[in-house]
Amino acid sequence: MSRAAARFGIVDHVATAPANALRELIELSMGATDLVSLAGGLPAEELFDVEGIGEATDMLLRSNTRAHLQYNATDGYAPLRARLGALSRGRGIALDDSQVVVTTGSQQAIDLVTRCLVAPGDGVIVERPTFITALQTFRMAQARLIGVESDGEGPCPDQISAALAAAAREGRRVKLMYLVPSFSNPTGSVMSAPRRAALLELAVRHDLTIIEDDPYGELWFGSAPPPAIRAMAEGEAADHVIYTSSLSKILSPGLRVGWMIVPPALEQPLRLLKSTADIHSSVFSQGVVEAYLGLDRLPGRIALTRNAYAGKCAALAGALTQHLGGAFRFQSPAGGMFLWGRLSKDGAPLSSRAFSRHALRGAGVSVVPGDPFFADEPAEGWLRLSFSQGRAVDLAEAARRLADAHQSFPASAEAAA
Amino acid sequence: MSRAAARFGIVDHVATAPANALRELIELSMGATDLVSLAGGLPAEELFDVEGIGEATDMLLRSNTRAHLQYNATDGYAPLRARLGALSRGRGIALDDSQVVVTTGSQQAIDLVTRCLVAPGDGVIVERPTFITALQTFRMAQARLIGVESDGEGPCPDQISAALAAAAREGRRVKLMYLVPSFSNPTGSVMSAPRRAALLELAVRHDLTIIEDDPYGELWFGSAPPPAIRAMAEGEAADHVIYTSSLSKILSPGLRVGWMIVPPALEQPLRLLKSTADIHSSVFSQGVVEAYLGLDRLPGRIALTRNAYAGKCAALAGALTQHLGGAFRFQSPAGGMFLWGRLSKDGAPLSSRAFSRHALRGAGVSVVPGDPFFADEPAEGWLRLSFSQGRAVDLAEAARRLADAHQSFPASAEAAA
Repeated sequence: MSRAAARFGIVDHVATAPANALRELIELSMGATDLVSLAGGLPAEELFDVEGIGEATDMLLRSNTRAHLQYNATDGYAPLRARLGALSRGRGIALDDSQVVVTTGSQQAIDLVTRCLVAPGDGVIVERPTFITALQTFRMAQARLIGVESDGEGPCPDQISAALAAAAREGRRVKLMYLVPSFSNPTGSVMSAPRRAALLELAVRHDLTIIEDDPYGELWFGSAPPPAIRAMAEGEAADHVIYTSSLSKILSPGLRVGWMIVPPALEQPLRLLKSTADIHSSVFSQGVVEAYLGLDRLPGRIALTRNAYAGKCAALAGALTQHLGGAFRFQSPAGGMFLWGRLSKDGAPLSSRAFSRHALRGAGVSVVPGDPFFADEPAEGWLRLSFSQGRAVDLAEAARRLADAHQSFPASAEAAA
Repeated sequence: MSRAAARFGIVDHVATAPANALRELIELSMGATDLVSLAGGLPAEELFDVEGIGEATDMLLRSNTRAHLQYNATDGYAPLRARLGALSRGRGIALDDSQVVVTTGSQQAIDLVTRCLVAPGDGVIVERPTFITALQTFRMAQARLIGVESDGEGPCPDQISAALAAAAREGRRVKLMYLVPSFSNPTGSVMSAPRRAALLELAVRHDLTIIEDDPYGELWFGSAPPPAIRAMAEGEAADHVIYTSSLSKILSPGLRVGWMIVPPALEQPLRLLKSTADIHSSVFSQGVVEAYLGLDRLPGRIALTRNAYAGKCAALAGALTQHLGGAFRFQSPAGGMFLWGRLSKDGAPLSSRAFSRHALRGAGVSVVPGDPFFADEPAEGWLRLSFSQGRAVDLAEAARRLADAHQSFPASAEAAA
């Protein structure tokens, strides 16, 4: 790469960036048939509402097709913005539909906000661990990443306060706090309501903006998570949160329809950046989603998905406990698509990367090593297991294979505790 | 904006950027019914192949729907990449399908390449005038824009050589040369084959990369333009060109399917940037386009579009000559969607912006002022007229209204020659 970097003049932070480990795993797993995968992290295809999407698409093709083939507004297809506004209000969020910007998945929202607010060297607070592609986005903007540990309720406000004080002493600005409060990728954990309020209060006090990434919030198993931070924010505090969500985990990722709710003062600069990025997102996709939401099938589909994922999660959690016992420590998640746990042997955490490779090659089971989810100084032994795609029987088999891999993996004395 | 910029910490080059004049005009024109518009720049909706798109969509819904609702590869849906590879080979371009990256319109290709190669202060060579949104993209990357005048054959190599020599003396690197060789937006002009070869040779000699933006190349009226620069490039020279094109002007912009052909050494960094930008483009859109291309209806549709646009262009050009005579000087384009000309009164070019406002308010006709198409020091009097959407009768009426506006517009002595 370095010769190419020199020849083409690839900018440094791109030339030196590692490949997106997660995307490569997903693409690798797309063709594989001879292994049991807990690595994917994709929603379950069998839950896609093919019939409903078909009906929505037929409606689009029968009505105003030409409008869905023509250029449209950068902020998104107006009827869809209204529907996503309503959907957001259903989550307790007060907003004007003009604040809704349709994006190509919520990943694009994260990217656009970052391009808008983060100059090289600006601080971005992230959880340890957090979503890989968000980390990649902040790195592409040459942010200074500030990793914060979580306790049982969420990221620790004291650590954030200390980091903000240190930044202030150094004369650096911290611009963003990136949070996935409900069933995060990778941990599946949920921030408590008081913690959400405390983080919002910190953001207001220190004049920074929260990106609240909420793709999984609807996918609770037993009871709903606390309200979104954006739903708790009243008056001017609301402008300290950019809420983003997506239909990828509750309807379809392939349609690539996400949205963000932006403070009015950021509408114009974000529109500029969105037009630079791609003029606008596919109006055909937007039209299909708009028509689908009009069918009112989504609530039923979400209920179906909750049930299915709850069952899959229980199957995986049970099999892990059965086959690995205390060697794999995890909290069974209360929603979402991921189970996060720490594997050890002879009392010491294993090397996540070495074990993942070993499990793939030696036992035919793929998992995602935890390292790349940490902004820096990865904690050893963590694995992300995805249960969304597996059938119960495969999830049980995966746990069995993990136990095999664990047994045949050499204990590593040098792994950090 | 400046208070918001301070409060949120909007990065300087975003906070100080002007709004995208073109996008705002397009969005303004979307609702307007009481004016004749030459401003839009959108393809003609009546030429959209609604029947063919419907057939393609039905195929997608009947066959492998779930795959088009699921996550897919960052580089694009493999069967579509193969079809776009074949389409590119039909344009004389030698490539491996693995070099094809599907983007959300070719705008995203421009943005990704810019993010990959342009660091703040790096030089980017552009034509005077050139595509507004490309200029905006380079500005977002804090490029130093180097505007080059064209003669009858294309951008002048001597000016480029001089600019490169100046940059070398200053120790600055020039990374990109952005070219729209066939029927450019806004000028509608075509670079000659020898000029294309000369520009390629310059790029190879000075180790810079050409972005060859080719959305309009198929839309010729009389005879085809010279081969793409990328088609002329042999051996290592091919790696000096990133060719990008789109189905927006020949099939549908709303589907947002564009592509780029990338040098192998840039595949990995561009994939990283694409995954940061939006994981991937809508697979549903990609599937519809893939199925459509399989129907083999595109060549006939392009032929139809050529004929229709040739007729529209002739109608507008004829009416302009009839109503404005020598006051509006232009070369009738040999393809594309735009007619570019210079309006003067009493021998002096008019203020493009003032005249455009005057024509909109006073005569009910909208045109795009030429100023924002210039990287700097805009030449006065230029207007971009789009004929793609108008019916012949409306185009004639538009020319008549422009003549009215011209007559009632005060000659401005202070306008530069």
